[in-house]
Amino acid sequence: MELDFTQLAPLDAYRWLASTVTPRPIAWVSSISREGVSNLAPFSFFQVISDEPPTLMVNVNHHGDGSLKDTLRNVQATGELVIQLVSFAQAEQMNASSAGFEHGVSEFERCQIGSTASRLIAPPRVTDSVIAFECKVAEIQPYPRDKPNCHMIFAQVLMAHVSDAVLNDKGRVDPHKMDLVGRLGGAAYTRTLETFEMVRPG
Amino acid sequence: MELDFTQLAPLDAYRWLASTVTPRPIAWVSSISREGVSNLAPFSFFQVISDEPPTLMVNVNHHGDGSLKDTLRNVQATGELVIQLVSFAQAEQMNASSAGFEHGVSEFERCQIGSTASRLIAPPRVTDSVIAFECKVAEIQPYPRDKPNCHMIFAQVLMAHVSDAVLNDKGRVDPHKMDLVGRLGGAAYTRTLETFEMVRPG
Repeated sequence: MELDFTQLAPLDAYRWLASTVTPRPIAWVSSISREGVSNLAPFSFFQVISDEPPTLMVNVNHHGDGSLKDTLRNVQATGELVIQLVSFAQAEQMNASSAGFEHGVSEFERCQIGSTASRLIAPPRVTDSVIAFECKVAEIQPYPRDKPNCHMIFAQVLMAHVSDAVLNDKGRVDPHKMDLVGRLGGAAYTRTLETFEMVRPG
Repeated sequence: MELDFTQLAPLDAYRWLASTVTPRPIAWVSSISREGVSNLAPFSFFQVISDEPPTLMVNVNHHGDGSLKDTLRNVQATGELVIQLVSFAQAEQMNASSAGFEHGVSEFERCQIGSTASRLIAPPRVTDSVIAFECKVAEIQPYPRDKPNCHMIFAQVLMAHVSDAVLNDKGRVDPHKMDLVGRLGGAAYTRTLETFEMVRPG
């Protein structure tokens, strides 16, 4: 089948891209407003950008009406965020935190998700996460610039919290112990336990 | 365990980020040089950016010596690329195409990967791919700007080729039929067959 993307409605383009560019890692982002209200929300347009400085990118879509999500507003205001990866054990909590709560409501409280103070920044982190990155904003870019429908948050990693329970005897993370979930299209997710190895040719 | 990313060597930062920001979708990118030599290489720092215009981003690291990879040079020169996703059946071929062949060698020929002419652009696509996106470059950004170690290719999707074999009876892609692979850290990959569904709360 051929699809002419120059003729697709944006919602159809979104569905085709989101259902095929898979599996996607999930950034579960905690942030805090100027007024001190914490926020927690998942985003799967998320990727590694650079190792020097160590930088991740979270791409935050606007709401359907064009307004900005609380995560973006908080990060624009404070320049700080925690990016957590999501284990299978946390999947239900992650999904609950994606609900459209009214502005000023903390998903930590409403969804009863345990929080722990971060070491270097104001937003709290998710207590039970296997991996949490404390980050400061390097740059925020609207895309496309002339008529943005999203903002890319470039986040410099300051420190990471790694659960000791997911380390192997060499001190590296074990994918089976992390048991992270990946985003597929629609309502679908994948686990990451069915692994295989291929050594890159020389 | 706590990791101070401000003190990590870039290679260690890379390893920690690449082994934890998972599972990552794989962009298997075909491009062509000004001289007409085709190239095919996989990249897992890859993500959806926008639905209007429909845009994907492939982040291409520089070689260890700072030189630019053939994919980036080709795309800089011609402004065109095909982005394929990778099924489990193609995983060995994808890995073979990541070898460091000398400049001017086509991975299609060297790795005996079937190619088909694209409809709108010069680079060929992988014949047996389940999904292939014909794209033109919207923008190429070095990161970080002052001392880049990578370039982000923002690719506008012009058209997609979707294998009829991966569609369900509603004309949507079925993740189990696509059987895509995701990138984990080190030499590890994951399959995407162990799926579950969670409906987003209202």
